[in-house]
Amino acid sequence: MLAKGIFISLEGIDGSGKSTLHQVIRQSLLTEYKVISVREPGGTFISEKIRELLLDIKNQGIAPETEAILYAAARAQLIKEIIAPALGHDNIVIADRFMDSTIAYQGFGRGLDLKFLHELNDLCTGGLKPDLTLLLDITPEEAQKRKAKERPDRLEKEGIGFQKKVRQGYLRLAAEDAVRIKIITAREQEAVQKEALQYIKGLIAARWG
Amino acid sequence: MLAKGIFISLEGIDGSGKSTLHQVIRQSLLTEYKVISVREPGGTFISEKIRELLLDIKNQGIAPETEAILYAAARAQLIKEIIAPALGHDNIVIADRFMDSTIAYQGFGRGLDLKFLHELNDLCTGGLKPDLTLLLDITPEEAQKRKAKERPDRLEKEGIGFQKKVRQGYLRLAAEDAVRIKIITAREQEAVQKEALQYIKGLIAARWG
Repeated sequence: MLAKGIFISLEGIDGSGKSTLHQVIRQSLLTEYKVISVREPGGTFISEKIRELLLDIKNQGIAPETEAILYAAARAQLIKEIIAPALGHDNIVIADRFMDSTIAYQGFGRGLDLKFLHELNDLCTGGLKPDLTLLLDITPEEAQKRKAKERPDRLEKEGIGFQKKVRQGYLRLAAEDAVRIKIITAREQEAVQKEALQYIKGLIAARWG
Repeated sequence: MLAKGIFISLEGIDGSGKSTLHQVIRQSLLTEYKVISVREPGGTFISEKIRELLLDIKNQGIAPETEAILYAAARAQLIKEIIAPALGHDNIVIADRFMDSTIAYQGFGRGLDLKFLHELNDLCTGGLKPDLTLLLDITPEEAQKRKAKERPDRLEKEGIGFQKKVRQGYLRLAAEDAVRIKIITAREQEAVQKEALQYIKGLIAARWG
């Protein structure tokens, strides 16, 4: 990839604090840089249509592989239309979830073949990877407690066991690609934000001097 | 694949006579075998929804890669839901277009990367290939003449030049996989049907004795 921008993805199980961190990073960087925020699936006309389709056909017997391929189609469009052009214009792109979510959720969580998913990721991204991935690591129990405070009415579709598998998947990915994926242990927000911004500023300094 | 059924695909440019041949083969085989006919994209609830989506988002700037991935999703579902179970029950499956159409139309016709498309085919089919592919070969000029007789009101979206590229793609594929892909030169229907049924009966005899 010839992009000169910087591509950062945020990963972690639900309740790990991605959205809050995303806003803080965005605000902090916006004073000096052009920042584009994206979220999957969606973000383009086509991707939103695919998102609607995924909701529309829920419980209609969709094969897990078909679902994974549909997510990949939405991602391919998001890259072509938003991410690649933004990187080409030297922007910083922050993605709330990207390719690692596919592996963690559909691979480790739901048990789809990891080789299939890695190949699908390679196909839909054309080899584009984040320069930096911040993995917000939290135990599923702690994440549940946080979410119960925010949205006590909301039932989780999948239980603690599923979230544990997803978390283990994330940690495995981080172990396999320690240069790209940095684990940030969930704790008080200020400490998390400070650590995240240190990684990002280190990357910016290395890339843009 | 452990399937014991027989999987036949029909390929060729528009106007090559696939639909007519499909009906004839189907009728001929139905007297002795269970025959399942499929057509892409579509054939399942999910695949029909994907087909609607593809029509719905036409001219909305869909990236060719995204379009190819959406077709792949529809194909994955068709295989899981219809083709694989039918083959598992020793049926004969006849597909009006399958993986070779992707390569001929989107690769040779529209110029998408062939490696990308082959990998996408492998992913969405899980390695399932037709046992026999009948390629109805016709010049685009002759195909146009045939179609003009049938539907004189219908304008072709893409011109002769595009159809020529697709035809060359098909012939290349047939050259690379001469065991699976049999070229049948378009001519009087009876001769085409006789040749097609010879190939099919040869395959049935070899497989089922």
